[in-house]
Amino acid sequence: MALIIKNGTIYTASDSYRADILAEGEKITHIAGKITAGKGDEVIDASGLEIYPGAIDVHTHLDMPFMGTVTADDFESGTIAAACGGTTALIDFATPAKGQPLGDAIKLWHKKAGGKSAIDYGFHIAIIEFNERVASEIPALIKEGITSIKCFLAYKGALMINDGEFIQTLEVAKRHGALVSVHAENGEMLTYLAGKLVAEGKTGPEYHEASHPAIAEGEAVHRGAALAKLAGTPLYIVHTSCKEALDEIKIAMADQRVIFGETCPQYLLLSNKLYHGNGFEAAKWVMSPPLRDGENNQIMWNAVRDGFIKVIATDHCSFNFKGQKDAGISSFAKIPNGAPGIGDRVNLVYSYGVAQGKISRNKFAEVMSTNPAKIFGMFPKKGSIAIGSDADFTIIDPAKKGKISVKTSHHKVDYNSFEGFKLHGMNVMTVSRGRLIARDDKFLGAIDHGQYLKRNKFNPDEWSAQ
Amino acid sequence: MALIIKNGTIYTASDSYRADILAEGEKITHIAGKITAGKGDEVIDASGLEIYPGAIDVHTHLDMPFMGTVTADDFESGTIAAACGGTTALIDFATPAKGQPLGDAIKLWHKKAGGKSAIDYGFHIAIIEFNERVASEIPALIKEGITSIKCFLAYKGALMINDGEFIQTLEVAKRHGALVSVHAENGEMLTYLAGKLVAEGKTGPEYHEASHPAIAEGEAVHRGAALAKLAGTPLYIVHTSCKEALDEIKIAMADQRVIFGETCPQYLLLSNKLYHGNGFEAAKWVMSPPLRDGENNQIMWNAVRDGFIKVIATDHCSFNFKGQKDAGISSFAKIPNGAPGIGDRVNLVYSYGVAQGKISRNKFAEVMSTNPAKIFGMFPKKGSIAIGSDADFTIIDPAKKGKISVKTSHHKVDYNSFEGFKLHGMNVMTVSRGRLIARDDKFLGAIDHGQYLKRNKFNPDEWSAQ
Amino acid sequence: MALIIKNGTIYTASDSYRADILAEGEKITHIAGKITAGKGDEVIDASGLEIYPGAIDVHTHLDMPFMGTVTADDFESGTIAAACGGTTALIDFATPAKGQPLGDAIKLWHKKAGGKSAIDYGFHIAIIEFNERVASEIPALIKEGITSIKCFLAYKGALMINDGEFIQTLEVAKRHGALVSVHAENGEMLTYLAGKLVAEGKTGPEYHEASHPAIAEGEAVHRGAALAKLAGTPLYIVHTSCKEALDEIKIAMADQRVIFGETCPQYLLLSNKLYHGNGFEAAKWVMSPPLRDGENNQIMWNAVRDGFIKVIATDHCSFNFKGQKDAGISSFAKIPNGAPGIGDRVNLVYSYGVAQGKISRNKFAEVMSTNPAKIFGMFPKKGSIAIGSDADFTIIDPAKKGKISVKTSHHKVDYNSFEGFKLHGMNVMTVSRGRLIARDDKFLGAIDHGQYLKRNKFNPDEWSAQ
Amino acid sequence: MALIIKNGTIYTASDSYRADILAEGEKITHIAGKITAGKGDEVIDASGLEIYPGAIDVHTHLDMPFMGTVTADDFESGTIAAACGGTTALIDFATPAKGQPLGDAIKLWHKKAGGKSAIDYGFHIAIIEFNERVASEIPALIKEGITSIKCFLAYKGALMINDGEFIQTLEVAKRHGALVSVHAENGEMLTYLAGKLVAEGKTGPEYHEASHPAIAEGEAVHRGAALAKLAGTPLYIVHTSCKEALDEIKIAMADQRVIFGETCPQYLLLSNKLYHGNGFEAAKWVMSPPLRDGENNQIMWNAVRDGFIKVIATDHCSFNFKGQKDAGISSFAKIPNGAPGIGDRVNLVYSYGVAQGKISRNKFAEVMSTNPAKIFGMFPKKGSIAIGSDADFTIIDPAKKGKISVKTSHHKVDYNSFEGFKLHGMNVMTVSRGRLIARDDKFLGAIDHGQYLKRNKFNPDEWSAQ
Repeated sequence: MALIIKNGTIYTASDSYRADILAEGEKITHIAGKITAGKGDEVIDASGLEIYPGAIDVHTHLDMPFMGTVTADDFESGTIAAACGGTTALIDFATPAKGQPLGDAIKLWHKKAGGKSAIDYGFHIAIIEFNERVASEIPALIKEGITSIKCFLAYKGALMINDGEFIQTLEVAKRHGALVSVHAENGEMLTYLAGKLVAEGKTGPEYHEASHPAIAEGEAVHRGAALAKLAGTPLYIVHTSCKEALDEIKIAMADQRVIFGETCPQYLLLSNKLYHGNGFEAAKWVMSPPLRDGENNQIMWNAVRDGFIKVIATDHCSFNFKGQKDAGISSFAKIPNGAPGIGDRVNLVYSYGVAQGKISRNKFAEVMSTNPAKIFGMFPKKGSIAIGSDADFTIIDPAKKGKISVKTSHHKVDYNSFEGFKLHGMNVMTVSRGRLIARDDKFLGAIDHGQYLKRNKFNPDEWSAQ
Repeated sequence: MALIIKNGTIYTASDSYRADILAEGEKITHIAGKITAGKGDEVIDASGLEIYPGAIDVHTHLDMPFMGTVTADDFESGTIAAACGGTTALIDFATPAKGQPLGDAIKLWHKKAGGKSAIDYGFHIAIIEFNERVASEIPALIKEGITSIKCFLAYKGALMINDGEFIQTLEVAKRHGALVSVHAENGEMLTYLAGKLVAEGKTGPEYHEASHPAIAEGEAVHRGAALAKLAGTPLYIVHTSCKEALDEIKIAMADQRVIFGETCPQYLLLSNKLYHGNGFEAAKWVMSPPLRDGENNQIMWNAVRDGFIKVIATDHCSFNFKGQKDAGISSFAKIPNGAPGIGDRVNLVYSYGVAQGKISRNKFAEVMSTNPAKIFGMFPKKGSIAIGSDADFTIIDPAKKGKISVKTSHHKVDYNSFEGFKLHGMNVMTVSRGRLIARDDKFLGAIDHGQYLKRNKFNPDEWSAQ
Repeated sequence: MALIIKNGTIYTASDSYRADILAEGEKITHIAGKITAGKGDEVIDASGLEIYPGAIDVHTHLDMPFMGTVTADDFESGTIAAACGGTTALIDFATPAKGQPLGDAIKLWHKKAGGKSAIDYGFHIAIIEFNERVASEIPALIKEGITSIKCFLAYKGALMINDGEFIQTLEVAKRHGALVSVHAENGEMLTYLAGKLVAEGKTGPEYHEASHPAIAEGEAVHRGAALAKLAGTPLYIVHTSCKEALDEIKIAMADQRVIFGETCPQYLLLSNKLYHGNGFEAAKWVMSPPLRDGENNQIMWNAVRDGFIKVIATDHCSFNFKGQKDAGISSFAKIPNGAPGIGDRVNLVYSYGVAQGKISRNKFAEVMSTNPAKIFGMFPKKGSIAIGSDADFTIIDPAKKGKISVKTSHHKVDYNSFEGFKLHGMNVMTVSRGRLIARDDKFLGAIDHGQYLKRNKFNPDEWSAQ
Repeated sequence: MALIIKNGTIYTASDSYRADILAEGEKITHIAGKITAGKGDEVIDASGLEIYPGAIDVHTHLDMPFMGTVTADDFESGTIAAACGGTTALIDFATPAKGQPLGDAIKLWHKKAGGKSAIDYGFHIAIIEFNERVASEIPALIKEGITSIKCFLAYKGALMINDGEFIQTLEVAKRHGALVSVHAENGEMLTYLAGKLVAEGKTGPEYHEASHPAIAEGEAVHRGAALAKLAGTPLYIVHTSCKEALDEIKIAMADQRVIFGETCPQYLLLSNKLYHGNGFEAAKWVMSPPLRDGENNQIMWNAVRDGFIKVIATDHCSFNFKGQKDAGISSFAKIPNGAPGIGDRVNLVYSYGVAQGKISRNKFAEVMSTNPAKIFGMFPKKGSIAIGSDADFTIIDPAKKGKISVKTSHHKVDYNSFEGFKLHGMNVMTVSRGRLIARDDKFLGAIDHGQYLKRNKFNPDEWSAQ
């Protein structure tokens, strides 16, 4: 049996053309001006629609224990929301507890995801301490396709590692073929500021932002980039939120270093005004880094356009407003950090980026799918509409209008960060490995459809090719 | 009749995959894992070969009067050399004389190229003076597909325009949909320095470089970028040669401006050592900007890798060493500026860029074909291996070795700037609009095969898409 | 006869101390904790007062023909206003007409100033065209003590020189020992913008600013600094008004170049709001560069504090609102550019800089007197409170309050740019070469007291010493 | 009894003039063209000599336990060497042990210095851990005149504090009126690199440099400056050695922050070539930061000239080559870090800076005396040649020639870092509080002459005084 997508317009990171696509089994086998369906072939009519390589979300936290609770979405709800929203693969952060072998964390994450994922999934491994035991585990993980490592310069006393641990992580990663990504905020600054604010009685959620100033993010990007320069290896900066951090990425790139910037829809579309006038509801947007002022939104869009930001992911990390976020009613420092987004990324970036002329359709394909696939060792299986690649498609109707609401959201969380955002241009079909798994926001797939993505090593010399 | 290319690996600016290609008429109609040839179909076996979208050279000077003589290559020799070297399209600079209507220059260039081009060709229009007459001609030119304008901040007393003329050109271009490119060297500095050197008796070709210091290039990029910022429009910097100029491009990009950098093989591979110890033969490399020191070569490669340089073109502008370059035997200031390169670009950039791991295969496709096509309004007809695009291919054998020599060069000029450069990875077949026009450096095409490229308007808001 | 100043506190660019001063003849001969007056000595009691080295204004335009009229203040009114306001020396710009020998301009300026100056005066020579004749005149001028040259990158068609002329001026100046200063605005941009605005019917004075954007100033500083780097010589930037220009000064300094920034009280204290809501009265502040937004004020203060700006001068260039400024009633482009300030600089910079804690008293002495003296070859005769220096003092009562008004101003012009500015800390006595020439804003001197200042050569290697 | 210095030329940070000086008691009371000696007055003839405000060394480590040993020089030998070399005051680092009350460290340092100092002395307090106890001690120390705090971002496991401790130190210092200085090297990087080198068997002293790369210094300056920006307070960077660190100072200054850079003669005059070809003798120059390459020397000189570096101190921290430095024979990591310099600073900076035209005489006075005095709260008692200031003078004979050698050095250490350096221009007399304490390198003073300097608070708003 085969799937034929007819009459659509294909957009890749570089190309744009009208063609039919034939997928046989799970792979793309044919692209032509006109493909005639055989008997039994499933045919999708994509007239007037835009076909993109399946969108990939490389930054999610599903079923993760954090700050005394567990994220609201597990792999089941998270991947269904992803599928309905046009995302065909994700990489989640397997995060060990202190002292826990990395392998155990991976096993645990396999258990969380196995049979419970509507779309393909891989894992980053978080390194929250570095020692010989940790170092010795890396090669085995890489063999299993865990070829990216996440470090935290924030969350002092919990996930944060020191610079010495970070440089050793960079060196081990470089030696064995993994890419290191980093949460770049100065945890010492953050802890100090939070303590000071709380001591001053400034405990409302509106003070979260003040405890995470842009300079703390800029400093950590600079430091991370310096450590990576010393180690002679690239670095991936997650969830870049502001000019201060971006400027350090620009400086490092101008200095001929390979540094990958990632941002998220919240840093492109939401502003810190939400922290004010909303009472404790501001807690909904308590995340790290925090929302910045509106000027930063346009700056981040331009950085995507100009190639300083290479990936848009979500940092999906959902907590219910009632029952979870309200743990911080007495102090913002206790509000679980994070917000949902996995189901909304495609529609938001398309509606506010492509449809409004901020980025081109090719750039959309690049930052939503192709770059994530290349940077994280999934290319050309993922990230590509090309013969031999997985038949993963995000199919968008540029004319379809809608609105974001928690009422229609597939996330298993009681609010939506983008509530009320109007959409113009929406995902209408999601195809994963040759199967239509969602249509018009309705899930048509199977919860055990998703497969584990054993990813290739990262090759610093030629990250964007093979 | 159709052409089938079998068993090759396709590389576009974003993708990499094994597939067969079917071209019917002049267009690509089918891409699939396996395409079976019909009767009468021409089949090319590309086993072990790499297939790229046809390379485009957006910076050539064929049959151009300059400095009292005329470039050695005309469209016939130039396009045959291009074809043999793997280039399937070019944009030449139609350069009016002072006072000459732009339309007349275009007519003249049509005459030079019409029926005498082995590959497709378009024209930039050079603007060497700005006034109402010039302004009034622009809309008609754009209608004819001349959607890019070249200005010179160098060549005082000849091609140079002043800042006031430049800003008016930028504004007119913006209004009507053309992109402005600029030769960025401070012509006042150059003229002053040349005069001073000559007055001091420093007339040998080895002094050419001293009359074109890097600061003159950096200054002009800064100024050009400032004028473009004032006009609120992008800018294209031709033949960027050095860190000083590149730094200004980086600064403008960091400032969220759209600025396109171009470089050429000579600035990636040759150094100013050639000006010394070679006697008057140094005149062979008298071009503007001049060759810079060796450190700049790697800096330029990294800028290509990192996206600060978007295009590699040649600035092919050939003059015979005997009979033309020697007009400057008494003074470097009289040496016709320029050097050949159109036939060697593909092989050089592949051998020294891709094969040596400096840039990826996708980046090669991007800077040699896709970006030129997008920036200059030829996409997706050109610059793409996709259904509906012209069947233009540059087919490379990564294993083939060779050496550059004037003896085997198809240029009609008596030396080669890259004499003796060893090649590892060479173009072996060139396909233009479905026809194999060169194989193993042998021209198989027809001198009237090339068609005029009526290019689309430049759209600053979304340059990389449609 | 001698003058003794008792009980004051002395502030120099580096020191701060309580002492009495004895001046014999025109020179300082004694500084001590207590000096006893001899018979016939004149004694000034400076209890509670601050004594500074006599303030120097190195940027004035007195009795200068410009834009079809002549500045309102001549040497008589200008120097009396200066004296009353605490300024003891000035350097005026001798500006030749096109084709006029420099020597003739100097002669003319000697005639304007000779016997009509209440304070000491020197001349810069303006170079508005460069050729062999001009070059040949420089050595003689330098011998006469005209050791600084002013060039204009603005005022196209009038004072503007091109880059080639500028670099030659820099080289000649370097060779013979003069410092070049530059009015850094891109005259081509300005002319283009003014023309465009006028063509659009935007002729009111409120459009002057739009015709002089900050980017035109930044560009010209960058270009001037590049030309100076090429020539290997320092550069002095007059009337820096904005961040864009200042950033280029900072970049040049960070690049280890010697570059002197000057600003004026209007760029520290006035904002472009004055151009709006004032009808044609906005013409009062039509000057070049124009007033910038308020943020720039603080940026400029900080640059003074941090050493990026080395001098505060006035660019005193006064035109009556009635009868002169109104020449531009039909078009801002015809409003004579300039505003008064020579009499108010000391009081303004003290009240708004020192008294408000923006700069220290030593910094006040440095930028108002010592740096001007050193940079322009008058040190240690001027710019110093030290044995052997001229007994020039600006004596300030830090407690005295006042208000600026045209009614009390000594300028011979019908408005004051700083009308209504409250003062806290004012000059109460001015001493020039041992004579008290003003007290409490009353002129006590003689109109022929001022002497011509034959200035020393500029020595780039050690500008701040002897 | 009084001291009269006749016929010399006085140089302050801003002034230069011929005058006689009268000191009565310990203070300067009279400066005049000619002062006639009274009966019993001591008269120094300074004909042909240059008189500077007494040089101050704000960075010394005398009698300090460090790395398992104690510095070779104590206050006695250190201050005698200082006096003979033209230095009239110093500030030493009182460094507590972990857990030790700051007050105890200060008491101990008073004991070390009291009655054993030939020149005046003050103390910085080092903070090597931050907690409530430490915070609570600060106000008392400031009351005692300890108005500067030193922190270390290097020396992990020993002196290093983390960013949280640093920011709290900055805030406490700001609140109470102290200036924080910082040893800016990333201690985590250093520790990691040293460990790695040693593990690789690279244990010779020539590897010290590799364990202290310039990027570690640049990173720490950036981070320190970010923390200070967050705290809203100035910062003082000790012993800046390289472009990477200096660039961060420039960036911070361009960003309108107040940041003071200090360098030392070793970073102006010595290069890392000394680490090679000298066998274990390279240990003599094992200090942190290490010597850098020769290009950095000129860069640092220019930074002094241009105002980016405000102070030249010594970081005098001497260990005998035999018996102390050789503790590191098995591993560079065990070599006590530091080198002597207190006795040579004046002669070196004069001979290689002033005499060679790199800096002016005023700049010499500024960075050797006036700035140190102002920044560290000793002005105008110190740092000034003015009525009422201490009669401290460094008297230099610009014609005197000599050579540096351990044989003639007054340091109590068995080598000299600058062995063999030729001198042209040397200190010939040192006057401290009105007493000639050294002449022609011979100590004429008393070992208990030096007094404790109770320093004023640091005022960030007007650091350079009123």
